[in-house]
Amino acid sequence: MALLSPSRRLRRTPFSDGVEASGVKAYTVYNHMLLPTVFRSIEEDYRHLKNAVQVWDVSVERQVEVRGPDAGRLIQLLTPRDLRGMLPGQCYYMPIVDETGGMLNDPVVVKLSEDRWWISIADSDLLYWVKGLAYGYRLDVLVDEPDVSPLAVQGPRADDLMAAVFGDRVRDIRFFRFMQLEFQGRYLVVARSGYSKQGGFEIYVEGADIGMPLWNALMEAGKDLDVRAGCPNAIERVEGGLLSYGNDMTDDNTPHECGLGKFCTTQTAIGCIGRDALLRVAKEGPVKQIRAISIQGEPVPVCDRYWPLMSKDKVVGRVSSAAWSPDFSTNVAIGMVRMTHWDDGTELLVDTPDGPRTAIVKEKFWI
Amino acid sequence: MALLSPSRRLRRTPFSDGVEASGVKAYTVYNHMLLPTVFRSIEEDYRHLKNAVQVWDVSVERQVEVRGPDAGRLIQLLTPRDLRGMLPGQCYYMPIVDETGGMLNDPVVVKLSEDRWWISIADSDLLYWVKGLAYGYRLDVLVDEPDVSPLAVQGPRADDLMAAVFGDRVRDIRFFRFMQLEFQGRYLVVARSGYSKQGGFEIYVEGADIGMPLWNALMEAGKDLDVRAGCPNAIERVEGGLLSYGNDMTDDNTPHECGLGKFCTTQTAIGCIGRDALLRVAKEGPVKQIRAISIQGEPVPVCDRYWPLMSKDKVVGRVSSAAWSPDFSTNVAIGMVRMTHWDDGTELLVDTPDGPRTAIVKEKFWI
Repeated sequence: MALLSPSRRLRRTPFSDGVEASGVKAYTVYNHMLLPTVFRSIEEDYRHLKNAVQVWDVSVERQVEVRGPDAGRLIQLLTPRDLRGMLPGQCYYMPIVDETGGMLNDPVVVKLSEDRWWISIADSDLLYWVKGLAYGYRLDVLVDEPDVSPLAVQGPRADDLMAAVFGDRVRDIRFFRFMQLEFQGRYLVVARSGYSKQGGFEIYVEGADIGMPLWNALMEAGKDLDVRAGCPNAIERVEGGLLSYGNDMTDDNTPHECGLGKFCTTQTAIGCIGRDALLRVAKEGPVKQIRAISIQGEPVPVCDRYWPLMSKDKVVGRVSSAAWSPDFSTNVAIGMVRMTHWDDGTELLVDTPDGPRTAIVKEKFWI
Repeated sequence: MALLSPSRRLRRTPFSDGVEASGVKAYTVYNHMLLPTVFRSIEEDYRHLKNAVQVWDVSVERQVEVRGPDAGRLIQLLTPRDLRGMLPGQCYYMPIVDETGGMLNDPVVVKLSEDRWWISIADSDLLYWVKGLAYGYRLDVLVDEPDVSPLAVQGPRADDLMAAVFGDRVRDIRFFRFMQLEFQGRYLVVARSGYSKQGGFEIYVEGADIGMPLWNALMEAGKDLDVRAGCPNAIERVEGGLLSYGNDMTDDNTPHECGLGKFCTTQTAIGCIGRDALLRVAKEGPVKQIRAISIQGEPVPVCDRYWPLMSKDKVVGRVSSAAWSPDFSTNVAIGMVRMTHWDDGTELLVDTPDGPRTAIVKEKFWI
């Protein structure tokens, strides 16, 4: 692995001091900010995430705040998901597309009230798209990036740890719902959500000054639960089929290609951008789609570029994320495969830097 | 320095194979892409840049292509710089601001023809802003990121190296002008520009497939000139006062605060976004501004966060970039200082991680 040169442009977070004290070994950069990727080792972090509880600095999930009388209209403009039924207190996973149906981001949107929303973004400057539209449409909204940094608590003991700090009410939060809970006199949005399949919460920490007090409170309260600093895990997220914008999909892809068609209620999402393009895709279906891919043989190297998926001499897709899974004793991978070859059990070849390997298309991810 | 975890999301470039073969030691991430930062050492790279010639993979300067009948109107909408006098064949440094005058990017714009432009961007997804505006205004333009990756040739021997590959015509290219020159049957935009004060060119390599052939041709032709792989140098760029978006300025800052007032001909840039806000700033002047700062004493550590500039107990500014300069035997730095303390020679204290140091405000950078 190469070294990462520090600079102000790669922003630290309110939790960076805690992350460093916990012995972070590597980072990636996400939304111009540092995102830890390894503490002990990816394998050791993986095992611990599945058995105990971890605190993750996911400040990189920056928020785009939209507030004002036209806020609801602007949010619906952004996404082919029909938001009419959404209530304050709910979070929605929400594909965002351009006029051609190409994905610009795949955030979770948090509805604080009818006229105040947070868009919790993946790795692209969605702020610029939202601001550009708001200005072009002359909408009566304010759009900015507030001082909000999510901290995730993930793992099977997440409820116990969160209850120790926020009280037992956290146990009542349903999936993709949030409550506003008190910490040191401040009310924070606490949602049951997160970028793992192990369960847990995301705390939207409003105000950088309480970042380290909250980090420390969680670490202190979690001593008996074997709490550790952690981060989104490269093995666990592929096993679970959690897509990563920029890795597994880009603005070349429609939500339907990414298996996100169920989040596109385009027919009734009146006024949304990309509607014409996506209605067409929804009608005909995509010609290629995200699939789980099992790559046989020894552990593969890190996937830092597309690996072509071949049938005989023809390229029929590509792998974009891959990792050796200790629990499933195979290389788990995420690929995009043409419809001619996407059926469960189809055998392909994948061109890895270590040479060609057998790759089996799977109907479902490893959960 | 921490390690950087590779992934598909941190895009490789058409020149990555050459960069790796040349022994790159560290990277930063810029526009979701790898940007080399060190080859031998920052000091050794610095000395070589000033004495010989380097080939830089600056693919991270992604292009936003705007083409179509409304292209010129959209480009003028983006910037407070009056573009009426700009001819095809010219490059302009062009601050881009939002409606409050806050900087969103500071690209170089390349006018290919009246209805086709490239915006060569700094580190933010300007594509989203431009696309959002084009959609909101219903302009008759196409906006996308083409397959163009700039390769810079920088250093005192840049003319000789470029002439060896492109012929002697390159010597006639004036500063911030470009010619279209032939390489292996393809015509490439070659501009006299670049992110150093040592002189040189930027080649807008259109088509990833000719990336390595061009890289190799330059390395081969430059053997007698002591050509090496290089990258923007953290010392040289601060000495020369070359600002870095995200380091030295953000969307909190107006161009005037960044010393870029001379690029804002706002009065006559009819229709530009941010006009009202910037006319006000232009009239009254900014209350803080970028300044060269000399930090006394031993070499400072890397500046990975703002360092406060103090006068007695009051914060009067901050340093955002700093490095030890072998040629000037001082720590050179870029700061933003309030008008009460920005006069040449003003003595301040800067809070570095190694403790407070004397900092002298300077009228001019080290060139």
